[in-house]
Amino acid sequence: MTDKRSQRAADRTEAIMRTTLELGQEIGYAKLSIEAVAARAGAGKHTIYRRWPSKGALLLDSLLSLNEAGLDYPDTGDIVADLRVQIHAAVDLLARPPFGPLFQALIGEAQHEPQVAAALNERFIAPQADKTVARLRAARDQGQLSPQFDLELAMAILSGPLYFQLLITQEPLTHEYVDRILDALFTGIGPTQAY
Amino acid sequence: MTDKRSQRAADRTEAIMRTTLELGQEIGYAKLSIEAVAARAGAGKHTIYRRWPSKGALLLDSLLSLNEAGLDYPDTGDIVADLRVQIHAAVDLLARPPFGPLFQALIGEAQHEPQVAAALNERFIAPQADKTVARLRAARDQGQLSPQFDLELAMAILSGPLYFQLLITQEPLTHEYVDRILDALFTGIGPTQAY
Repeated sequence: MTDKRSQRAADRTEAIMRTTLELGQEIGYAKLSIEAVAARAGAGKHTIYRRWPSKGALLLDSLLSLNEAGLDYPDTGDIVADLRVQIHAAVDLLARPPFGPLFQALIGEAQHEPQVAAALNERFIAPQADKTVARLRAARDQGQLSPQFDLELAMAILSGPLYFQLLITQEPLTHEYVDRILDALFTGIGPTQAY
Repeated sequence: MTDKRSQRAADRTEAIMRTTLELGQEIGYAKLSIEAVAARAGAGKHTIYRRWPSKGALLLDSLLSLNEAGLDYPDTGDIVADLRVQIHAAVDLLARPPFGPLFQALIGEAQHEPQVAAALNERFIAPQADKTVARLRAARDQGQLSPQFDLELAMAILSGPLYFQLLITQEPLTHEYVDRILDALFTGIGPTQAY
């Protein structure tokens, strides 16, 4: 493939994902369809299906494309500060307007559509879990975590309370809420004391 | 209302909720309808709508009717043991077969239907939060919790990791998983030490 052709393919991909987000915001997840995205983006329906098997997979990639680098963890040597920066960025991107309602609808769909659940886990949860565990392992090696903390549970414990707010109580996910949760999780519920 | 009439009304309510669960298991949440429940239960459609405004509200009540008392907290004086007993019971009822898939679908629906989300919060989350906070407050008074632990966050922190497993990774919710989460939450992520 020449550079020009590969550039054209990248432009087309970008146009399809941008159109997905625009149209999703306008008409909502329920009415969004790959056909409608194809028509507005001036792309072939089969071009889209070749890359994305479902509208859930397409929407998820489109959301993540906005700020993928921003969802990496910094490493300033302060684990709480670094988690805070990363989680604020993730929440700003995914769980608040303008895209929060689309992300929420996507997770709703994942309860009925195993393909969407699989895409969510493969494209977002598993890579985030790997990054989270890597950053926490470094912190543990530096004595910033409880030596017993089970890294396998890290994603469930750190992001579970955020999904609870997004999906169950459906109250706003603010930076202040994230900070309070992090404080509580680092301190623990039990009667413990800092070194 | 005479005792006999009130007994008949209670029997009818019970029959409607039992039918909802039977039919929901057979045909799944998507195909479940108040009309189909009414037909099978031999009840009037309007009788059902008078009490439950949506199939989400009806299903939620039907699920909770199975074991409402079982979702209270014991108070043996050991907060971790008591949480474990209550959460095992909640998970057994709601998040595992036979009813787990219906509860999961209900939460999926709550992402698109504000009425279902409101019913879920009013009928289940808010009462559970009240019970949880009351049990934790007693434990805090007895020195079994960190004095700083923010009781307002209790539901999000305790049940968030369980909803994460149910809704996001969609891996089985086992008693062993609940126990590991409780251990990690009580210890905390940070480098702390028990008194």
